[in-house]
Amino acid sequence: MAVYQAPLRDMRFTYRELLGSDKVTELPGCEEATPDLVDAVLEEAGKVCESVLFPLNRSGDEEGCTFENGVVRTPKGFKEAYETFREGGWVGMACDPDYGGQGLPNCVNTLVEEMICSANMSFGMYPGLSHGAYKAIKRFGTDEQKQTYLPKLTDGIWSGTMCLTEPHCGTDLGLIRTKAEPGAAEGEWKITGTKIFISAGEHDLTENIIHLVLARLPDAPPGIKGISLFVVPKFMPKEDGSVGARNGVACGSIEHKMGIKASATCVMNFDEATGWLVGEPHKGMRAMFTMMNAARLGVGVQGLGIMEASYQGAVDYARERTQGRALTGAKAPEQKADPIIVHPDVRRMLLTMKAYTEGGRMLAAWISQELDYAEKCQDPKRRQEAEDFVALMTPIVKGVLTDLGSEVANLGVQVYGGHGYIREWGMEQYVRDARIAQIYEGTNGIQALDLVGRKLGAHTGRYLRRFFHPLSEYIDRIMDDDELEDFALPLAKQFVRLQQATGYIAQKGLSNPNEAGAAATDYMRLFGLVAMGYLWVRAVEVAKQNLDGDEADFYKAKITTAKFYFERLLPQTGALFAAIMSGSRTMMEMDEAAF
Amino acid sequence: MAVYQAPLRDMRFTYRELLGSDKVTELPGCEEATPDLVDAVLEEAGKVCESVLFPLNRSGDEEGCTFENGVVRTPKGFKEAYETFREGGWVGMACDPDYGGQGLPNCVNTLVEEMICSANMSFGMYPGLSHGAYKAIKRFGTDEQKQTYLPKLTDGIWSGTMCLTEPHCGTDLGLIRTKAEPGAAEGEWKITGTKIFISAGEHDLTENIIHLVLARLPDAPPGIKGISLFVVPKFMPKEDGSVGARNGVACGSIEHKMGIKASATCVMNFDEATGWLVGEPHKGMRAMFTMMNAARLGVGVQGLGIMEASYQGAVDYARERTQGRALTGAKAPEQKADPIIVHPDVRRMLLTMKAYTEGGRMLAAWISQELDYAEKCQDPKRRQEAEDFVALMTPIVKGVLTDLGSEVANLGVQVYGGHGYIREWGMEQYVRDARIAQIYEGTNGIQALDLVGRKLGAHTGRYLRRFFHPLSEYIDRIMDDDELEDFALPLAKQFVRLQQATGYIAQKGLSNPNEAGAAATDYMRLFGLVAMGYLWVRAVEVAKQNLDGDEADFYKAKITTAKFYFERLLPQTGALFAAIMSGSRTMMEMDEAAF
Repeated sequence: MAVYQAPLRDMRFTYRELLGSDKVTELPGCEEATPDLVDAVLEEAGKVCESVLFPLNRSGDEEGCTFENGVVRTPKGFKEAYETFREGGWVGMACDPDYGGQGLPNCVNTLVEEMICSANMSFGMYPGLSHGAYKAIKRFGTDEQKQTYLPKLTDGIWSGTMCLTEPHCGTDLGLIRTKAEPGAAEGEWKITGTKIFISAGEHDLTENIIHLVLARLPDAPPGIKGISLFVVPKFMPKEDGSVGARNGVACGSIEHKMGIKASATCVMNFDEATGWLVGEPHKGMRAMFTMMNAARLGVGVQGLGIMEASYQGAVDYARERTQGRALTGAKAPEQKADPIIVHPDVRRMLLTMKAYTEGGRMLAAWISQELDYAEKCQDPKRRQEAEDFVALMTPIVKGVLTDLGSEVANLGVQVYGGHGYIREWGMEQYVRDARIAQIYEGTNGIQALDLVGRKLGAHTGRYLRRFFHPLSEYIDRIMDDDELEDFALPLAKQFVRLQQATGYIAQKGLSNPNEAGAAATDYMRLFGLVAMGYLWVRAVEVAKQNLDGDEADFYKAKITTAKFYFERLLPQTGALFAAIMSGSRTMMEMDEAAF
Repeated sequence: MAVYQAPLRDMRFTYRELLGSDKVTELPGCEEATPDLVDAVLEEAGKVCESVLFPLNRSGDEEGCTFENGVVRTPKGFKEAYETFREGGWVGMACDPDYGGQGLPNCVNTLVEEMICSANMSFGMYPGLSHGAYKAIKRFGTDEQKQTYLPKLTDGIWSGTMCLTEPHCGTDLGLIRTKAEPGAAEGEWKITGTKIFISAGEHDLTENIIHLVLARLPDAPPGIKGISLFVVPKFMPKEDGSVGARNGVACGSIEHKMGIKASATCVMNFDEATGWLVGEPHKGMRAMFTMMNAARLGVGVQGLGIMEASYQGAVDYARERTQGRALTGAKAPEQKADPIIVHPDVRRMLLTMKAYTEGGRMLAAWISQELDYAEKCQDPKRRQEAEDFVALMTPIVKGVLTDLGSEVANLGVQVYGGHGYIREWGMEQYVRDARIAQIYEGTNGIQALDLVGRKLGAHTGRYLRRFFHPLSEYIDRIMDDDELEDFALPLAKQFVRLQQATGYIAQKGLSNPNEAGAAATDYMRLFGLVAMGYLWVRAVEVAKQNLDGDEADFYKAKITTAKFYFERLLPQTGALFAAIMSGSRTMMEMDEAAF
């Protein structure tokens, strides 16, 4: 049966021992994130996730959301759980204290988000979407908008959405048709159009829902440069903070989906709904990208959360289920069969899950820490470096961790055998829930195009250098370290491959953009695997210094898992490299009619 | 939206042009399988699958089976569809004409089964399971049992099951507890126990259900050598062929599963149910393996069927959906956006799907043709060779084609983006349906162990030589063929890798069976990829001879797809080889408590 315990020990390893994230207290606004506080927050979050959110994960999936007469009901228990969550201050955990938030750094928030996604990914969508709306208003809204919406979103008594997609356009937002016409009062607009796939577009958890909507002003130029961002509340906010009249926005239906069934995915109809411009006219895409970058990191963390939960369920079953004998002779002769964890093929699956999960955590935590520096560092040089790095790595975190999320969740099912396919055991739900993360906030193919098309070439490779230079220096440093000899050379080799692939794409892509497009997905994975490989070597370094202590077993397992990663998973890079270097010709020469 | 048209052109290519399967008419009992008849059968089967089974695939998934008071109801329309299917003679298509079957060769049957699985995998489970029961009784039953059951199973008016799994044992059938005690009459046994995961264990499609049940006789030795096979009908058969009293077997509940929801997966309770021994006492596993080998090939074909259906859906959408512009400039300037099939990353996904699907078809068809020789060839040498070959390749077809089934179905969802995640579009169902095929009839990990543990070493490598020798000769032959220079050397290299990996496992596995266990899954995939690579080169040979004809586009696409396979998919072998050669040490050294 699926089980979940917040992986606090490994989180501390990643946060403190590997990344030294306690140093974020040096950033203005993060002073209070002391080791004691961070530990207390993680522990408390773990309890809420284990005892409030996780118990609703299966029932929420079975029941799903219901839609009747424009009203969306979340599954039984969600309302109460949301209240507990909200009252605990978890919605505004990473929000500005000026608006009532806790002001915790991103690097802490990411770990808490991971726990939420492990425990109940559907539930996490509701506060998660609010956070996107919060960010957009905070950065681009007027003071009045900030005062009206941010305290409510921070508190969680109101929630938010991002309304981008329309029936005929998802990836290609330049095709948006939703329009904004002058409203009754100065600064008011009437928004009309249909948006689809709106997560948390309608539900019964909050008193109001604040939609951030992309639409076209009357004088909008065609395409992507004519899109503006509007805030459109479900109920009109009143001066006293209460809600007034219903606005002209309504849920038309909810989708029946493969997974995240407790998350309401809505068709939202805007019929002359009153809205206000957020940011400058026709600059909506810029504002939306702000929301999307944060959201993309968050989606990567969804993949991570599912990995952890699936891994825990699989280990639990592999220890309990007895079937067959170890190939080298009975391990539990007192029983009629050995637990299946004795079998190499089961261990192969579990170690694959473990290596990706812990590697994914290191990667997500690292980017989150740099995001804190990008947002708050006073040193402009350091801040710029962090911004560059986050820009480079965000599509990788989103794309690679969500691909791995699905792979790991599928391994979790496989460890369970037939029981993995049965809903009540909870393992197949992870597969269904994880699957969306590869699609939304830009499909992983789009993440890969963002990486090769926008990020690689930006400022003549400046973003790239934020990863390549430190990695290069690191490899130089460890090359002569006897303790790391199993890792240094293979890492160096993979890094050469990554550099060669990068050079190939940069060069060929210039004359033929299809070359970059053809390489993109394999390149993104190659990049992600090398980045995780680097982090695994750093983890080995930390572990080797702790092999004599009380927790020798924990650190020994880190080293074994790193070896497994290097022996069994990192070699994929060879296949990826070969695929990248084969170019675009074959796939482009295929006649459309011949598919 | 999901679409399905039987891929008759490609089936003819595989059956006739590539494998020359028309020659099976030389086998006794296959004389009637002339080209005209085979074409007519495939065409007719295509019509039934497209017009009768496919329209029930989505509705069957939504409605699922229901269980009430011991009665199982299949979804709306299934009863009528089954009647049409049965009346068309499709249930007994591959059965012996002596019992009313059509006696069609396996190599035709496999193609028809592929269509059924593409159109409605859940539906296919009902006749599919009957076929397993038919095979066991035909091979091991008494004359009386044959006369009683085979005509009914062939006709389809009765159906069959295989009752193996119990709550505490699946893979490890030695743990079976279901018992057989002497019954009221000579030769009758009373069967008592609980079986789970019984596909088609109870349903409303047939007048009787014939259970093939593994149980222990009173004097049974412990473990796997004490298991016998029994036939246990739901209703007692009467002399006149009608059904009599209800037997002591009842459905206790049905499972709620990830997919194949229209297939009833039952808990079956046997309470002193009357049964008769099939075959010798305590030799039930042998009989069961007969059923399982055929079933494993059939499950591999399920993976193939899902691949084809998912591929067709994805191509259809990629041609229709407009979004963005080709990276090299608009391809459809008259529209606001280009169809997404212009994008290299979409083509990468489609070609991956196509290469695996057509490669999988070639592989499954090849093994099926050899199965006909194994079963019917009069030349004992040729028959033995075919038997060896089928024994070797069956776990590969099952394991690799079902793994690819899931991979391809997931790509199909990804091509659809957000719509892929919505149930009504039908693409996510393929992911859910395909998933079980990696698990049942022996998980793919068990297939891999069967390959490395039983098949590699059998008769000092005799099975293996049935693949290695012809491949070796083929490579020698094409090495100097200028027409094939893009393929010959890469194929030769991959074959060397496969041979080296085989040698490594054979050698290391002797002293430490964990070495074979650790390598098994990666080895199985390596083997499957090389086998498909070989078939793709043969396909290129055929295609090159037809580039001047009317169907030049069809053959050109074959060559392009083969190139794609060699450039982008076959290179995985490098990573698999590295993983295999890394051995078992790391995964076995991990302490159980440290997972």
